[in-house]
Amino acid sequence: MDDGSKVGLPPGTPIHTGDKQLSKVKIRIIDYSPSELEVREDVNLKDCVPLAEGEGIRWVQVKGVHDVETIQFIGKTFDLHALVIEDLVRTQQRPKVETTQSGAFLVVRPFSFDNEEERLKSEQLSIVFEKGLVMTFQESDSDMFDPIEKRAKQAIGHLRTGTADYLMYTILDLIVDRYFFVLEKLGDKIEALEDKLVRESSGDMLHEIYRLKRNIMAMRRHVWPLREVVFQLNRDEAHLIHATTQVYLRDLYDHVIRVTDLLETNRESLTAMVDIYLSSMSNKMNEVMQVLAVVSTIFIPLTLMASIYGMNFPNMPELTLSYGYPLFLFGMITIGVILGLYFRRIGWI
Amino acid sequence: MDDGSKVGLPPGTPIHTGDKQLSKVKIRIIDYSPSELEVREDVNLKDCVPLAEGEGIRWVQVKGVHDVETIQFIGKTFDLHALVIEDLVRTQQRPKVETTQSGAFLVVRPFSFDNEEERLKSEQLSIVFEKGLVMTFQESDSDMFDPIEKRAKQAIGHLRTGTADYLMYTILDLIVDRYFFVLEKLGDKIEALEDKLVRESSGDMLHEIYRLKRNIMAMRRHVWPLREVVFQLNRDEAHLIHATTQVYLRDLYDHVIRVTDLLETNRESLTAMVDIYLSSMSNKMNEVMQVLAVVSTIFIPLTLMASIYGMNFPNMPELTLSYGYPLFLFGMITIGVILGLYFRRIGWI
Amino acid sequence: MDDGSKVGLPPGTPIHTGDKQLSKVKIRIIDYSPSELEVREDVNLKDCVPLAEGEGIRWVQVKGVHDVETIQFIGKTFDLHALVIEDLVRTQQRPKVETTQSGAFLVVRPFSFDNEEERLKSEQLSIVFEKGLVMTFQESDSDMFDPIEKRAKQAIGHLRTGTADYLMYTILDLIVDRYFFVLEKLGDKIEALEDKLVRESSGDMLHEIYRLKRNIMAMRRHVWPLREVVFQLNRDEAHLIHATTQVYLRDLYDHVIRVTDLLETNRESLTAMVDIYLSSMSNKMNEVMQVLAVVSTIFIPLTLMASIYGMNFPNMPELTLSYGYPLFLFGMITIGVILGLYFRRIGWI
Amino acid sequence: MDDGSKVGLPPGTPIHTGDKQLSKVKIRIIDYSPSELEVREDVNLKDCVPLAEGEGIRWVQVKGVHDVETIQFIGKTFDLHALVIEDLVRTQQRPKVETTQSGAFLVVRPFSFDNEEERLKSEQLSIVFEKGLVMTFQESDSDMFDPIEKRAKQAIGHLRTGTADYLMYTILDLIVDRYFFVLEKLGDKIEALEDKLVRESSGDMLHEIYRLKRNIMAMRRHVWPLREVVFQLNRDEAHLIHATTQVYLRDLYDHVIRVTDLLETNRESLTAMVDIYLSSMSNKMNEVMQVLAVVSTIFIPLTLMASIYGMNFPNMPELTLSYGYPLFLFGMITIGVILGLYFRRIGWI
Amino acid sequence: MDDGSKVGLPPGTPIHTGDKQLSKVKIRIIDYSPSELEVREDVNLKDCVPLAEGEGIRWVQVKGVHDVETIQFIGKTFDLHALVIEDLVRTQQRPKVETTQSGAFLVVRPFSFDNEEERLKSEQLSIVFEKGLVMTFQESDSDMFDPIEKRAKQAIGHLRTGTADYLMYTILDLIVDRYFFVLEKLGDKIEALEDKLVRESSGDMLHEIYRLKRNIMAMRRHVWPLREVVFQLNRDEAHLIHATTQVYLRDLYDHVIRVTDLLETNRESLTAMVDIYLSSMSNKMNEVMQVLAVVSTIFIPLTLMASIYGMNFPNMPELTLSYGYPLFLFGMITIGVILGLYFRRIGWI
Repeated sequence: MDDGSKVGLPPGTPIHTGDKQLSKVKIRIIDYSPSELEVREDVNLKDCVPLAEGEGIRWVQVKGVHDVETIQFIGKTFDLHALVIEDLVRTQQRPKVETTQSGAFLVVRPFSFDNEEERLKSEQLSIVFEKGLVMTFQESDSDMFDPIEKRAKQAIGHLRTGTADYLMYTILDLIVDRYFFVLEKLGDKIEALEDKLVRESSGDMLHEIYRLKRNIMAMRRHVWPLREVVFQLNRDEAHLIHATTQVYLRDLYDHVIRVTDLLETNRESLTAMVDIYLSSMSNKMNEVMQVLAVVSTIFIPLTLMASIYGMNFPNMPELTLSYGYPLFLFGMITIGVILGLYFRRIGWI
Repeated sequence: MDDGSKVGLPPGTPIHTGDKQLSKVKIRIIDYSPSELEVREDVNLKDCVPLAEGEGIRWVQVKGVHDVETIQFIGKTFDLHALVIEDLVRTQQRPKVETTQSGAFLVVRPFSFDNEEERLKSEQLSIVFEKGLVMTFQESDSDMFDPIEKRAKQAIGHLRTGTADYLMYTILDLIVDRYFFVLEKLGDKIEALEDKLVRESSGDMLHEIYRLKRNIMAMRRHVWPLREVVFQLNRDEAHLIHATTQVYLRDLYDHVIRVTDLLETNRESLTAMVDIYLSSMSNKMNEVMQVLAVVSTIFIPLTLMASIYGMNFPNMPELTLSYGYPLFLFGMITIGVILGLYFRRIGWI
Repeated sequence: MDDGSKVGLPPGTPIHTGDKQLSKVKIRIIDYSPSELEVREDVNLKDCVPLAEGEGIRWVQVKGVHDVETIQFIGKTFDLHALVIEDLVRTQQRPKVETTQSGAFLVVRPFSFDNEEERLKSEQLSIVFEKGLVMTFQESDSDMFDPIEKRAKQAIGHLRTGTADYLMYTILDLIVDRYFFVLEKLGDKIEALEDKLVRESSGDMLHEIYRLKRNIMAMRRHVWPLREVVFQLNRDEAHLIHATTQVYLRDLYDHVIRVTDLLETNRESLTAMVDIYLSSMSNKMNEVMQVLAVVSTIFIPLTLMASIYGMNFPNMPELTLSYGYPLFLFGMITIGVILGLYFRRIGWI
Repeated sequence: MDDGSKVGLPPGTPIHTGDKQLSKVKIRIIDYSPSELEVREDVNLKDCVPLAEGEGIRWVQVKGVHDVETIQFIGKTFDLHALVIEDLVRTQQRPKVETTQSGAFLVVRPFSFDNEEERLKSEQLSIVFEKGLVMTFQESDSDMFDPIEKRAKQAIGHLRTGTADYLMYTILDLIVDRYFFVLEKLGDKIEALEDKLVRESSGDMLHEIYRLKRNIMAMRRHVWPLREVVFQLNRDEAHLIHATTQVYLRDLYDHVIRVTDLLETNRESLTAMVDIYLSSMSNKMNEVMQVLAVVSTIFIPLTLMASIYGMNFPNMPELTLSYGYPLFLFGMITIGVILGLYFRRIGWI
Repeated sequence: MDDGSKVGLPPGTPIHTGDKQLSKVKIRIIDYSPSELEVREDVNLKDCVPLAEGEGIRWVQVKGVHDVETIQFIGKTFDLHALVIEDLVRTQQRPKVETTQSGAFLVVRPFSFDNEEERLKSEQLSIVFEKGLVMTFQESDSDMFDPIEKRAKQAIGHLRTGTADYLMYTILDLIVDRYFFVLEKLGDKIEALEDKLVRESSGDMLHEIYRLKRNIMAMRRHVWPLREVVFQLNRDEAHLIHATTQVYLRDLYDHVIRVTDLLETNRESLTAMVDIYLSSMSNKMNEVMQVLAVVSTIFIPLTLMASIYGMNFPNMPELTLSYGYPLFLFGMITIGVILGLYFRRIGWI
């Protein structure tokens, strides 16, 4: 969350917002061409430069954006606009794309599901894309890109022979695939909760439903602008994307739309679950009230009868009957049984 | 539902998602021209090739898409894009159309109602359409196309004399007609539930209402993009569709809009039913409370009276009256009757 | 409602859907020009042909569309498209307009209010409009067009001097006027129910509210596409409508918008009534609970007091007081009165 | 409300709808130029003619539109279209503007707040605007235009030097200012009700909330089309409006948008008030139930204790204790106090 | 809130609306160029003139707009349109931008959070922007612009070297940063309330929720038009904004969209909180009812038993048993314990 410290600073002042997730910014560089691939870990800042043209594709992975000075140094090396540098370190951006004449700057937000803590996690991923160059800026040291690197190393698919825009697309595709994966996890949780709700309903379940709904809404807020981002890349007014990649981007656009569909489906399920929960609460109260009404209706009149024969009037003819007491008991039981049968018939017990 | 196994694979990798509904992929080929019609069952993979131009229309029916290798082989034979092949085996697509220069690729989702299991069923149907060629890829071995084939055999309507785009339209028309049929079934169920709701309301009905609503919403999610699909075919910027077929597509578009209308109507009915259900629950509780209040209001004061005359004070003048007990009973009954009449007047009993 | 019998038939196959409202199709022809007017009842099928040009305007009224063969014969005589003929006999169309080069085909749905049965009725009215020709196809034998014919006979207004497009406009205007009339009837019913709701609320009223809402929604579903129909006629890209009629069509468009306004107003009223109904239910329960609480709070403690002095402890000093019993009664009454006054002050009784 | 009497009449037939608010149509004419201003009351019908060009601006005020013949006579004198005349006497139009080549016809609906009857009032105001001429048709004899006339007389502002379009704008501006005024009144009522709702909630308040909501909705239905009217005047495709007046119309458009903003704000407040009302009802019931539960839980067990010692078993050891009765009373009071303290701690009393 | 005093005044009459927040209008002038900066406090009205061209940038800060005459004098000096002057003193405008040939007039509404009074505060800020000139009109004497002035003095960022449009952007950026700051405060309050709601729910919380919702809605009503304002500045059809500033305005537009996102998120949270609150109320009632039902069900039958043995029938065999009383007590306790265990099993206690 942005805080007051940002109010009144000159625009373009890079201020890191968000949690510091790494102690040191790590830089990793992957250079590849159809014939070669080189990976360098923990590259020094001063070795971190753009490739000369025609030398293949350079992918600069920056892990950790909390160290403003380092990011600024990198930004200057790669000639990034002051506002782009500000966006890199401000980690609550909404997904967006900004195209320049020579490339594009993208902000997206990959989600993952932490199985141990049972909660949704996300970080900001900024992508700078230019001819022959892709830079990715993550908040954490996650191994998100492992599958892409593996394919690059093994030369599977079109990645090694593709251009930088294809690499950018591959990264976006990975992130959208992760959305499907996270949605499946959430979908499982929703279904499990639904099953539980049919069996019984306790007060905690509403909080659980709203917790899941908040997760869905959080994803939704980032998927809708992502849809816009992919749509704009598709139109590609600046002619940054090769025709072969365009086909893949259209496919990606379909996938993003399907993610929004799944999000809506889940949202509707959760809304229906709130209704069912509230109705089951109401049913439960109905049951409680029925028990109360049945017990009161049967026993209160009987108590009156017993109280009457406990009165101290001297001449109560019933008391002098030889079978007075058994008759009373018989009458009382008869009344109780009749009322009980009646309540059973109208479904109260 | 897509799962994690898809995350990080190169785009265009065909991975079958969904249940395997058939043990073996079956291929069926129908070749027809105004004069001839030939049907071949269980065609071998290597016999499965496009027709030479001018030789009539070939309809390749592929039943079962779980066998990725077979689908890939067919895809290569007919020169399909890698992403199309991926879509063929990924069976949770939303309806879409992709037009190329020479044809179109459609994904739709026919629904049917399983009378025995009392539930909605659907499968993905992919249609590849090119000049003189229509390919359909189903998940199951259903006999969905029987009515069309029958008409083709008997040369009823324009089918035999029409072009491949007319065959494609005929298939879409069949699917939309099935939507009407399924909606009628659901509509009957909704009406039956509505009638039941007027008579009595139990806790299960809410689950039933939401089950039907989920069905309606599932159809809605596939009909809205279908509307877009038919609209795009109508505009036909690639000039794939003959003018004579265009008229039929406009008619089909009207039908799809009417399906969405019916879906909205059903959705509104179900929403109203939830309100009525909740209100009837509330009415029921009102009744229970009224019974409780009436019984308590009548008998609790009378019990007090009886308790008073059960006290052991030595000088209670009422006890010494000769007609004390009958007077007491008379008073008690009078009070009870008056209260009862009062409650009857205000409508509580 | 369309049913399964339609699934799989060739497109353009006319299948009558809906109830058969007449035993025989009746054809009525009105020919008119500024100078003459001729009405022929029960015209034979073979006499039912278009007028030669310049001979005035022919209005063919077909009453009853259940007899598919007759309609097909008429359709062939007047050279109608197969899909138009299919639409004529399929009586659950949504309002639409289809313009051809020489004319237009309209489907609308006039509503009426059956005073005896106290319910909304509607039928499909299809209008075929060409130069010098208007054909109307109704489901029933209703005298809907009487006011127009009367004006035609008496040569009131521009009808006799107008062109066929003016006759088409006049028919649409009549139908929209009927909407106002029906809405007034429904509005009266809504107001009456509103007044009743303020006085008392019973369980039946919710069903009545939802019945009215369903009526409003049914009209709404047909008025919104009608709005689109009139808008398209207004734009008139095919130059079918004369400039003088255009002015009237713009006026008609305003009327249709006002119908939608009235429908929205009524819908909002009904939604508010549901809220008020539910709240009055809740109020009612509150009252019941208050009575129960007041009675219990006053009498249960008093009963305890009486029970205490009914105990058989040998040494209860109160029992030996000479004015024990009157004191007890006085205390009991005092407590009861004080509690009663308290409950009156906090508004529970 | 339109009624059945209108169904089937030829279009353009002027039928007065609405209440007759005046016994006689009054005509008032104001002629003004930068140098002169003349006001004539109760002008004769035959003196009611357009001004010759260049003679200044004539403002014809017609008060009362129930007399169809008079309005028709005026309409013919000023050469108005039959549909315009029909609109003048049909007093439930929605706001609209119709531009012709020489001028424009506007329908708007000024609202006022009747302080005595405490209710919203409105009437239809139709404005005919042409070069050098403005005609206003009101339903009643209200002095709505007094402020404008006063300024005209005193030559304050640009009115006297302006053109007829500026007069039209001035009238619209007055009406929008009245909207603000009425909204302020309604806003005060809403706030007062809100304050009352915080203190206490009774069943009448819901009706009051919905009455205010109906008022807001009634204004909303007329302000939204007014917005469209002002927008269309702004675009002014017919070049009726002078550039100097355009600036004022843009300002007016901002004001109308602000009226819609205020209406939305009030609507939201009222919706929130319904929620708060329903929740306070629910709170009230909670309180009632808590009192009932507390009284029952404390006194019912004590009554059981007292009843036990009222039993007639011969050997009840407690009865023979010398301090049996005081011990019993002590135990009873102790139990009561403990339960009372417990209920106080959990917040039920 | 506008009041009746405005109805009927000539348009462009400046009438101050809103509270008078200052006793005297204060004028402050800052002149700056890349090399120099001069600040003058409490400038006399007659010294308040535009700069000659090329002399740098003049920023005229007017604090207090209640003194209509002063504002009118300033307006005439700087040649402002009458409607602009009217807008300056009418302090409930919605955010808007009006571009003229030489500059633009903006109305925005900065929000701040008053920590002491714990409430949202806002005032109208009007900005007049022309070549080399920015005028700001505030309602109060707040030190809102301190951060900008500080940067100008210390020549941090591009401000000193920038043009007047950059100054205008800087002011807008400051206001949007303040929105983030206020939203963070509100977000904290919402979270605190959410935590409190999970622990317990009292009647006051609903009012608190709706108070926060009203705050969010108030901001929303001003942020949405602000979005439109920034969008229009971005398009800049009048070529008022330099290309370098455009980049910053696009960034600002992203920030405004993020503010709307945050507002929606908060709104959804508050709506969910209302649901949770109402459901917790319902849970609470359920608990109360369960206690009541449990106590009644256990003790009422036992009281009946005790009453029976308090009856005065002469021959009640149980009374003559030697262990009658202990047996009775044992039976009573057994029944009570069994019922208690049963209620524990079904979760009522």
